[in-house]
Amino acid sequence: MTDKVAIRRALISVSDKSGIIEFAQQLCAMGVEMLSTGGTYRKLRENGIPVIEVSSHTGFPEMMDGRVKTLHPLVHGGILGRRGTDDTVMRKHGIAPIDMVVVNLYPFTQTVTRPGASLEDAIDNIDIGGPTMVRAAAKNHNDVAIVVNAGDYTGIVDEMRANEGALSYASRFDLAVKAFEHTAAYDGAIANYLGSIKDSETQRFPHTYNSQFIKKLDLRYGENPHQQSAFYTEAKPTGASIATATQLQGKALSYNNIADTDAALECVKAFDEPACVIVKHANPCGVAIAKELCKAYDLAFATDRESAFGGIIAFNRALDGATARAIVERQFVEVIIAPSVSAEARQAVAEKKNLRLLVCGPWDSGHVPELDYKRVNGGLLIQERDDVIITAANLTMVSRRQPSKDEIRDLLFTWKVAKFVKSNAIVYGKDGRTIGVGAGQMSRVNSARIAAIKAEQAGLAVQGSVMASDAFFPFRDGIDNAAAAGVRAVIQPGGSLRDEEVIAAADEHDMAMVFTGIRHFRH
Amino acid sequence: MTDKVAIRRALISVSDKSGIIEFAQQLCAMGVEMLSTGGTYRKLRENGIPVIEVSSHTGFPEMMDGRVKTLHPLVHGGILGRRGTDDTVMRKHGIAPIDMVVVNLYPFTQTVTRPGASLEDAIDNIDIGGPTMVRAAAKNHNDVAIVVNAGDYTGIVDEMRANEGALSYASRFDLAVKAFEHTAAYDGAIANYLGSIKDSETQRFPHTYNSQFIKKLDLRYGENPHQQSAFYTEAKPTGASIATATQLQGKALSYNNIADTDAALECVKAFDEPACVIVKHANPCGVAIAKELCKAYDLAFATDRESAFGGIIAFNRALDGATARAIVERQFVEVIIAPSVSAEARQAVAEKKNLRLLVCGPWDSGHVPELDYKRVNGGLLIQERDDVIITAANLTMVSRRQPSKDEIRDLLFTWKVAKFVKSNAIVYGKDGRTIGVGAGQMSRVNSARIAAIKAEQAGLAVQGSVMASDAFFPFRDGIDNAAAAGVRAVIQPGGSLRDEEVIAAADEHDMAMVFTGIRHFRH
Repeated sequence: MTDKVAIRRALISVSDKSGIIEFAQQLCAMGVEMLSTGGTYRKLRENGIPVIEVSSHTGFPEMMDGRVKTLHPLVHGGILGRRGTDDTVMRKHGIAPIDMVVVNLYPFTQTVTRPGASLEDAIDNIDIGGPTMVRAAAKNHNDVAIVVNAGDYTGIVDEMRANEGALSYASRFDLAVKAFEHTAAYDGAIANYLGSIKDSETQRFPHTYNSQFIKKLDLRYGENPHQQSAFYTEAKPTGASIATATQLQGKALSYNNIADTDAALECVKAFDEPACVIVKHANPCGVAIAKELCKAYDLAFATDRESAFGGIIAFNRALDGATARAIVERQFVEVIIAPSVSAEARQAVAEKKNLRLLVCGPWDSGHVPELDYKRVNGGLLIQERDDVIITAANLTMVSRRQPSKDEIRDLLFTWKVAKFVKSNAIVYGKDGRTIGVGAGQMSRVNSARIAAIKAEQAGLAVQGSVMASDAFFPFRDGIDNAAAAGVRAVIQPGGSLRDEEVIAAADEHDMAMVFTGIRHFRH
Repeated sequence: MTDKVAIRRALISVSDKSGIIEFAQQLCAMGVEMLSTGGTYRKLRENGIPVIEVSSHTGFPEMMDGRVKTLHPLVHGGILGRRGTDDTVMRKHGIAPIDMVVVNLYPFTQTVTRPGASLEDAIDNIDIGGPTMVRAAAKNHNDVAIVVNAGDYTGIVDEMRANEGALSYASRFDLAVKAFEHTAAYDGAIANYLGSIKDSETQRFPHTYNSQFIKKLDLRYGENPHQQSAFYTEAKPTGASIATATQLQGKALSYNNIADTDAALECVKAFDEPACVIVKHANPCGVAIAKELCKAYDLAFATDRESAFGGIIAFNRALDGATARAIVERQFVEVIIAPSVSAEARQAVAEKKNLRLLVCGPWDSGHVPELDYKRVNGGLLIQERDDVIITAANLTMVSRRQPSKDEIRDLLFTWKVAKFVKSNAIVYGKDGRTIGVGAGQMSRVNSARIAAIKAEQAGLAVQGSVMASDAFFPFRDGIDNAAAAGVRAVIQPGGSLRDEEVIAAADEHDMAMVFTGIRHFRH
């Protein structure tokens, strides 16, 4: 491999023109000869930067509205020629070496997601010459530097200045990796777009699903110590999430920390009132809303003290000093996440050096989440995220007795919790707090039984509480058992063949029952 | 858009040469003029097919060991020129239209996974001219056909023969989609490979993770009816899996069917003896091994009759008539999957028209599975699959009493089941069958309690059974409770701070206890 490559001639043709004038000026000052095309050429000229048009370099005109301008052996021979090996043939054919290619591609995804964008617009925006130069330069990174990100300009100039205009192999290799990442994402986006058109109609799911994720963290290990693992994020994750959160202190996040923090944060985002969610083994083990955040934590913790030990705690309000102190004084906790953290809270947590404290910023309820995946051996299930949130207006009253205002509040509260509990999910709750969480059972009646057991273990009375079920009751036994335990109102999707029998059971016990029409399986 | 395009001139340059002679002969017979390069050119000539070398077409020599041969305006103007719009400029510069491009790329992944492949080999195998022609022709699919799969040759010839040498817009569009899928996968593989090299060392996880999955099924909906969904498979799924299985009869598979069938099949693959696994809501609710498959089913069913209703049943032996009859006579079942199905079994199942019957073929224990994913909002956790299987040789005996031979058999059996039960997982078993499955709880002691409840519900005695725990016991209470229920032997990873106390508890109860040193969290 060649260590240092002196940059003497560069070809510049960029869609993203941010910083390009300054970069070209700096290259010019270091004596780099520049070739360019189209809009970039004009922009550099207007700014008084000496630049040669590619067509005059090749002696072949730019044609077909720019479809063919750089696809020429004098350009590609100059990029691909191996210095030392191909010198003779380059001289013979008058091929001048090009040592740096500065090219980035029009963001295809941005084009096709623009309202009213047609297939023709999309196709016009498929760049052919650009990716070819990017790929050629990246292949020949032993002799050529390829620059696809405006963010790299400063570092490149700094390195060249410190090295008499040269770039090291390590820098050129890193740039080459970025180049292929750029073209892979570009063609992936084109394949996703074109592959979703069938008989001139756009389908939700393309013929092939192409994705690129960017590594954020190498993890010590995965779900278990014998599994290697890493955490990746979307290219541009938007909204507050575990992917965008900042860690303020504590040990490195583990695989299970990340998965559970995601569950806790997404759950706590469902509430408008100050809320606390404690997650353990992928399930909320305690959830509460209250006027004060500290009170919400107290109530969430009280649902299941045992499981809360070593849990993940998420809040939907700024973490204050009192709440932070209450946590660290009372329990071992793996992760705390909140939209923000007060100075006092930060200080309170600081004494527990290992505790991972994360801030994720505020969230926007209008945020459209990306698709959800479930991996299976040999394949991938892809689905829209379960992002439906029910309000009182969506409820259908099916029982003789109508729920009271307080019951409606508690029904909606437990429903939001049930959405995040693994199926079959049964949640008992009262006065804005969970009383018992029955998670992950193969039969609904057992989940209800577990919810009751958990309430009993916590010393919480089920009497007067409400019950949420993530899916319909197949039989009336679930209702009968709940009534016997003291449940007074039930929220569930409805839709069972035996709905009539289930409603009759509710009426017999004078329970209020509402249907959501929405199911929330989560496995 | 242009409806029919008559194919008069084709450029052929393929890495995968299967079928290329016949295809070229057929094109030739329809009067298509052919251009070619390198090895493809020689092969066609050797077979007496009239073909023009690209270098004589462009008047520019192939150079740099083939790095530059087709990157020429006479080639790319011929591919990219818009018929009707660019005719004048094409004529002026002597650019002959190219109506079809037949190019496929050297399988990069195959190169870099070859033992001893160097970075230099990899870079030499990055094709620049090929993808450029593929992309150019795909962009201009309104006027040009792009062929990247040998599997498409026959269909193309048939269509051309039926249409006086022309291809329709619909065909050209489909081919263009495949073309971008091809280049997206190619650059994704290059980005994965180069992005995993850091300071000349290969890392397990690349800087960006690029993947392509191929749609197998559009699903009616996802995990819930309000979520749209589709099922994708890897490009080349190997081994027996839900991705490679064939459906013999029944309703279309749902999202939850696919997820649960995967869980059931992967679990049943863990056993050497004839085995049956019944899965409900992502958890095994009954598992058994026996000399006869039908007996294994009986025992698995008996663990939890209630949950087995509407479950998924997987076998590791050919489904025979007696077993199939026993199932359909006894219970409602969503899916049955087995390596193969006898004619008698197929007939027995046929009367239940909705029942989904799948065959997956035999499996190979040497199969290396691909990476596992866990989706979080804004990101993706990627990890190696949990594919460790423990044998008797891996066990560390830690209790005073050594387990008997039967106990060891049952310990290994329940351990295999626990690997597939959602954490915290506790499995009670005896004589090669599950007695109670405690799944998905936030505290281990509750999972144990549930396992005991399930055994009681099923009318199965825990007395004399063994217990598997997917992770270590943090306290001795889990052991004390199990002993009280009648458990005689325990298998668990070990590794708790209180291991000594936990072992002492086992010794007090004269229980046998073995450590695996391996944890099997599964969430």
